[in-house]
Amino acid sequence: MIDRIAILGTGLLGTSAGLALRGAGFRGSIVGWNRSAEQAHVALAMGAVDSVAGDALQAARDAQVTLLAVPIYATLDFMEKLSGVLGPEHLVTDVGSTKRVIAEAAGRLFNTRERAAFLPGHPMAGKERGGAALGDAELFRRAVWLFTDDPAAERSEAGIALVKGWREWVVAMGAKAIDIDPVRHDEMVAWVSHLPQFVATALSALLEDEVGDAPELKDVGGRGLREMTRLGASPYSMWRDIAYTNTEAVDAALQKLEQRLAHLRENLRTPELRAEFERANQFRKD
Amino acid sequence: MIDRIAILGTGLLGTSAGLALRGAGFRGSIVGWNRSAEQAHVALAMGAVDSVAGDALQAARDAQVTLLAVPIYATLDFMEKLSGVLGPEHLVTDVGSTKRVIAEAAGRLFNTRERAAFLPGHPMAGKERGGAALGDAELFRRAVWLFTDDPAAERSEAGIALVKGWREWVVAMGAKAIDIDPVRHDEMVAWVSHLPQFVATALSALLEDEVGDAPELKDVGGRGLREMTRLGASPYSMWRDIAYTNTEAVDAALQKLEQRLAHLRENLRTPELRAEFERANQFRKD
Repeated sequence: MIDRIAILGTGLLGTSAGLALRGAGFRGSIVGWNRSAEQAHVALAMGAVDSVAGDALQAARDAQVTLLAVPIYATLDFMEKLSGVLGPEHLVTDVGSTKRVIAEAAGRLFNTRERAAFLPGHPMAGKERGGAALGDAELFRRAVWLFTDDPAAERSEAGIALVKGWREWVVAMGAKAIDIDPVRHDEMVAWVSHLPQFVATALSALLEDEVGDAPELKDVGGRGLREMTRLGASPYSMWRDIAYTNTEAVDAALQKLEQRLAHLRENLRTPELRAEFERANQFRKD
Repeated sequence: MIDRIAILGTGLLGTSAGLALRGAGFRGSIVGWNRSAEQAHVALAMGAVDSVAGDALQAARDAQVTLLAVPIYATLDFMEKLSGVLGPEHLVTDVGSTKRVIAEAAGRLFNTRERAAFLPGHPMAGKERGGAALGDAELFRRAVWLFTDDPAAERSEAGIALVKGWREWVVAMGAKAIDIDPVRHDEMVAWVSHLPQFVATALSALLEDEVGDAPELKDVGGRGLREMTRLGASPYSMWRDIAYTNTEAVDAALQKLEQRLAHLRENLRTPELRAEFERANQFRKD
């Protein structure tokens, strides 16, 4: 049913989506666009897209489904522009890491019988470094792909069919689709995704200041240190928009962790340390 | 030269050392002892030791080299007892995660011409769960094995030869031997080993309280969450002694991280967030 897809943003996620669609048997056209054309040509060379568009809006107009795979503020910009040029025969979906602001924009700009459909999505997959060259057809396999759709959206027949079709392709790519309210989504990812990222960033930045001049110490730390700082390589360019669009929930989670660390620190020589280890063990129980 | 080794403590590290010695071609006898005999019999069944001793002190007397692979306070207990029953023809070495208290005890109880030699050691290898059954001949391959020897130690000829021989076996097991001052060791591992562990414990304990009743959220967090909390499975039984014997350095490191997290939190919407990401990126640069 879907046979024309546009991927706007051929970084890690956009390129991986193109490769995963092909891997899942998608035989239609996939056009790619990227702000820096070089990345789009990398995606083309990898087979993630079969043509590169010069004009993103035109590419979206020519496609049935447009996947926005750009940072959140760029997604919001595209939503404004696309709502003016697309119609009820189009679906736009995205991969943004926070969903409240995107779901709000979707309600304002899309999802009536006369307008294009918009399905807010968030695949819980990625790597600590971005770029088309790291694109991976298997990136979404066994990953959760969250949708924060509005159950009250009143879409065109075509929009309803495209939403259903896109959800089927997401499952075909190997992901597990889960529906969740956008506000609940942002609170939840503050705990299980944003907090771990900001902790890794703070820990890595601190270690850079304290032991950065002694690189041999990184070997001393071994696997535990490598894992606890891997996300320290994540780019500001992506996390800036997350920090701006989920500030309150991230602030609350960080503050709780600061309190927890202080509690542990004050109990390094008391039986309460055992209780903290036991709670932590519980979290990791299979 | 070394052909009789006793391993006191056949948990993960002791059992792995036995297996790694065999893997490196050690053909002498390896006797194992464990407080709970069951673990010693697991190590025996795995081929890490070729006999199980009922009496740890007797086993050490019969060996040339005794490897203490027990928690730190148990190591200190053994050091007191062994210093009374061993002589200049013996070497004792250990795998304890803090070295100041052990190096102090070594200076007080060992390392004269009339007494047994003691070489404080610390292989930077492990798993988040312990036990003989997880023993692994490859555990020390490419790992750093720290030694905090006293350069002023005046040992017997036999002791000097055994120290040299044990260092050669450590290298043969695939580890990279590095010498470091014990006080500097404890400060350093506070940053690259203990801080990451206590952060993982606090983060895991917090997440257990906040989202522990929704196990599906662990899937949502994906690889980043799994890595940031893997060390949360580490046992209190091992970390208690580390917290007690390196309190000051761990306290200082935790306090700095709390400050760093607060700084990041207060700058979620300022350009300083970029600076923190860039410092973190720097730490992870290859």
